[in-house]
Amino acid sequence: MSELDGHGRVRVHFTPAARDIRVPPGVTVFDAASWNGIAIDSTCGGHGTCRKCLIRVDDGRLPVSTLDVRAFGADQLREGWRLACRAQVTEDLRVEVPPLVTRPKAATVGVGRQVILRPAIQKRYLELTEPTLADQTPDLERVLAAIDDLEPRVDLAVLRELGRTLRAADYRVTAVIVDEVLVDVQAGDTTDRCFGIAFDLGTTTVVANLLDVSTGTPMAVRSALNAQQPFGGDVITRISATMLDPAALGRLRSLAHETLDELTREVCTAAEVEPHEIYEVALAGNATMVHIALGIDPEPLGVAPFIMSTRAFPEIMAADLGVQVHPRARAAVFPSLGAYVGGDIVAGLLASGMDRDRRMRLFVDIGTNCEIVLGNAERLVATAAPAGPAFEGASIRCGMRAADGAIEVVRIRAGALELGVIGDAKPAGLCGSGLVDAVAALVDTGLIDPTGRFVPEDDAARIAPTLADRFGTWDGERVFVLHEEVVLSQRDVRALQFAKAAIATGWNLLLAELGIDRTEIQQVLLAGSFGSYLSPASAIRIGLVPKLPVLRVVSAGNVAGEGAKMALLSLRERAGATTLLEEVEYVELSDRTDFNDRFVDLLAFP
Amino acid sequence: MSELDGHGRVRVHFTPAARDIRVPPGVTVFDAASWNGIAIDSTCGGHGTCRKCLIRVDDGRLPVSTLDVRAFGADQLREGWRLACRAQVTEDLRVEVPPLVTRPKAATVGVGRQVILRPAIQKRYLELTEPTLADQTPDLERVLAAIDDLEPRVDLAVLRELGRTLRAADYRVTAVIVDEVLVDVQAGDTTDRCFGIAFDLGTTTVVANLLDVSTGTPMAVRSALNAQQPFGGDVITRISATMLDPAALGRLRSLAHETLDELTREVCTAAEVEPHEIYEVALAGNATMVHIALGIDPEPLGVAPFIMSTRAFPEIMAADLGVQVHPRARAAVFPSLGAYVGGDIVAGLLASGMDRDRRMRLFVDIGTNCEIVLGNAERLVATAAPAGPAFEGASIRCGMRAADGAIEVVRIRAGALELGVIGDAKPAGLCGSGLVDAVAALVDTGLIDPTGRFVPEDDAARIAPTLADRFGTWDGERVFVLHEEVVLSQRDVRALQFAKAAIATGWNLLLAELGIDRTEIQQVLLAGSFGSYLSPASAIRIGLVPKLPVLRVVSAGNVAGEGAKMALLSLRERAGATTLLEEVEYVELSDRTDFNDRFVDLLAFP
Repeated sequence: MSELDGHGRVRVHFTPAARDIRVPPGVTVFDAASWNGIAIDSTCGGHGTCRKCLIRVDDGRLPVSTLDVRAFGADQLREGWRLACRAQVTEDLRVEVPPLVTRPKAATVGVGRQVILRPAIQKRYLELTEPTLADQTPDLERVLAAIDDLEPRVDLAVLRELGRTLRAADYRVTAVIVDEVLVDVQAGDTTDRCFGIAFDLGTTTVVANLLDVSTGTPMAVRSALNAQQPFGGDVITRISATMLDPAALGRLRSLAHETLDELTREVCTAAEVEPHEIYEVALAGNATMVHIALGIDPEPLGVAPFIMSTRAFPEIMAADLGVQVHPRARAAVFPSLGAYVGGDIVAGLLASGMDRDRRMRLFVDIGTNCEIVLGNAERLVATAAPAGPAFEGASIRCGMRAADGAIEVVRIRAGALELGVIGDAKPAGLCGSGLVDAVAALVDTGLIDPTGRFVPEDDAARIAPTLADRFGTWDGERVFVLHEEVVLSQRDVRALQFAKAAIATGWNLLLAELGIDRTEIQQVLLAGSFGSYLSPASAIRIGLVPKLPVLRVVSAGNVAGEGAKMALLSLRERAGATTLLEEVEYVELSDRTDFNDRFVDLLAFP
Repeated sequence: MSELDGHGRVRVHFTPAARDIRVPPGVTVFDAASWNGIAIDSTCGGHGTCRKCLIRVDDGRLPVSTLDVRAFGADQLREGWRLACRAQVTEDLRVEVPPLVTRPKAATVGVGRQVILRPAIQKRYLELTEPTLADQTPDLERVLAAIDDLEPRVDLAVLRELGRTLRAADYRVTAVIVDEVLVDVQAGDTTDRCFGIAFDLGTTTVVANLLDVSTGTPMAVRSALNAQQPFGGDVITRISATMLDPAALGRLRSLAHETLDELTREVCTAAEVEPHEIYEVALAGNATMVHIALGIDPEPLGVAPFIMSTRAFPEIMAADLGVQVHPRARAAVFPSLGAYVGGDIVAGLLASGMDRDRRMRLFVDIGTNCEIVLGNAERLVATAAPAGPAFEGASIRCGMRAADGAIEVVRIRAGALELGVIGDAKPAGLCGSGLVDAVAALVDTGLIDPTGRFVPEDDAARIAPTLADRFGTWDGERVFVLHEEVVLSQRDVRALQFAKAAIATGWNLLLAELGIDRTEIQQVLLAGSFGSYLSPASAIRIGLVPKLPVLRVVSAGNVAGEGAKMALLSLRERAGATTLLEEVEYVELSDRTDFNDRFVDLLAFP
């Protein structure tokens, strides 16, 4: 898509990992690698100060930054050496990543967040003295005395094995502690094997990131469709299923567990890690997904007044999520702010540092349910807007998910229609970002009027003679043909209008809540798998995000997954997630009398 | 046995409970009732100050105490009214217990211990406000806010049920908290149903006491043989079994679980309590029994240097003990002082208040392994002496357990042999207390000389003409015929000598440890099922306990079971058990160079 002047997607091939990834233009090589589980040295967290994130461009062009000039000699620059954290990708690239040289004390995750490594998982190698009649200290107390800076609780199962392990290993053992629990005592020194998995449990997509938590190194990342799909595309249809059939909750839970466990096996295989070497998993998901995965009845989430079972979850085991890893592995599940501002958003806020940044920022995670957070370190307000399924491709005539064959980029340039299709395939449908692009382009050209109507054919022929013949009538409905069998229908435009009006109403009400003007927003973060692929220009054009200079609107990547990684790597960051529950004020829209008025005002295109 | 002038056992029949129990003479009606799970009103703990423990003698004689004279009128005394705490049983009785009239704040348990009721199990009835759009407090936080003096952890399983329960019960629910965990939220007000079971898990006998923990009322008590018996009578044979066969630990564990669960069903049925209304169990047992019941390899307990897996156990669920009660019921397992001074002894020390009493006391729990504790509130020392199986009836020619047909009392009066037999049956064998009585009587008469030898027949005929013809030779061994087929053999006397010498060596070394003389001991507590039935006079006569005025030697009853009850009724007492671990100094005998010298000195009869 690089031929589309940065409007589409660029491809980066990393060696020696042999990984091919697609990112929006403007993303740094460092972030692109980090989001995709490719480790690059860094101790400053991508702020250009440590100068450790060296990469070499093998193929493609990567401009020389001012820092590169200070970091490298002329020969090195000519050979393609760059600092990854300053190198913004603008075209297809092939990049070589040198092996890690430092054992890091910190890792870079999320939106340029530098996380000091203090994982919940700790291993301690112990060489204990053997008991004698003069020293009858019991086995467990002998172990605990050797790690006396910690006072872990002990799982009974550990005690069952302890005596044999100590004696078989000549009292040279490794204690495995997760948070405040001693989960294992292993023979010999196993301190170099410390792994965790960060899950982003989405309604549609589930992502697993396997990390070496002692170094913060990403080892493998895999994603899969949530196997709950057959029950419906969004949380409401899944909640409804549990209300109609008492057995549905159990089945939905099993399907979530299957998805998580399948991904676990995949990342373990890819990273050459044994499942029993995974001692903790972190999970970010919306309230419904998390409730279902834990076997908690989600019905109260789905009907007014929309009540969660709890904001912060009690102690959870990885086994409670159906993940077959170490039998006593724990699970850190992100707390939810509200029934419709879930743990995925809390993780995203953590990853984007919303509560630490002094800039006024707007965080928008677009999906069937759109979560919106506005504010800065001073104050944060959040809400959820019911956007409907348009962005997921449902209820759209030729809608499809962002898979091979989906038109994801639509542009009109010099009177010609240009399409970007995923997977270099024949266009088969229109995904969310393509829908937004298509409508934005037609609004921009004047082929869709501000009320959202396709202009009459006469007007179209006058305004855009090269495109007017793309209008037609299918099954009695006016459509705009994008490519042979793929059309944008008048009803599709309406669906998108409703969706964007709901979202715009959300952030408008939050602006009012803070008493500020949209122009005061210094950054808009588009989060989530869909938001990250949305064209900022198109999003502004249709009024989905506030009218701001386009550079202020940025893709934040899979921030929920990044937040989950942070929780694995740092207990302090994990505590930060809990703090967010106190810091963020939830604004319920469903009982606002001004919601409908604003919504109607915002249906039009600006 | 009342014809034996208080040397045997007396029978007390309680109405309306319709319970028939046997106790050593001298025990108060209050203690007899309390040890056997029959509730009598009391707020002072049996100290004669509250005057609430009224009983009425229906049949038999119960002397009038000085307190009775103050508490009752002449008519009432004539009708048989007495204060149970002052009424010492000296003959067979039939006693009526009035229904409880007070809702107690304290209960009397153990050796006259008054326990302020503060059970780990707490129920709170809550009438919550329903959520609205203006109050979206999550379900769990709504419940926890209503019990904000507690901050319980929450079991995931509770969260799974919570939403449905709250809505079905119109937000009127009862929260069940055990220690620091919210284990259930139940529809409606269930605060009057709060039960726990105290287990004494003995190597031979297992006892279960079902208590209403909110009132301290004993509801039912049952005992059974430990189903592990086929693996051997003592802890060493059971440990050996696990060393010889890897599958034995699992089988032994199952057998312990079966015994505990069978007793659970029995006490629940007897008390008309549903198993799911049991929210906590407390368990006192020796280290081996507890290790096995929890599935922990006991091998290191059985071989030098005798190492426990732990002194204090981690969080245990009732299910870990195989007890099918409330699915989230917890278990409070008594900590052990050492491999051979286990949780049963810690419970016994708690029940007898050894660490609070200013009197110098000797606590002796006699069995295959004999635990001995000496001291007072100032200092406590403990040890274990390997007494061997003589007291359990094993290795004794006609030995048997204290069951129907066992000779349990032996006395020589005016040249005649008098026997007390359990269950009014034909004598079938000799149990431990009978063995001690028999040897003491023959030593006393001079038919056994101080070295432990049966005197020659000529001497016997001279010393005790009416008894001399009871000597005979069976299978080439000299025996003393007690009754037809039941004899005391020369080897039996030797076995008892070894056992009592081991025990006497134990308390002698503890006396030396504290630097005191035996005459300074103000009370000897005979604990455990065997110790409680031992004749104090005989125990003194053979040197099993120090030579002291006989009134200083008292039966303490099943103190381990009593300690377990205390743990159920009071978190403070439970904490006291942990404190005991710090307070009691364990003296290991197996590496003492002076052990053998003292042992040889103490083989003789004093």
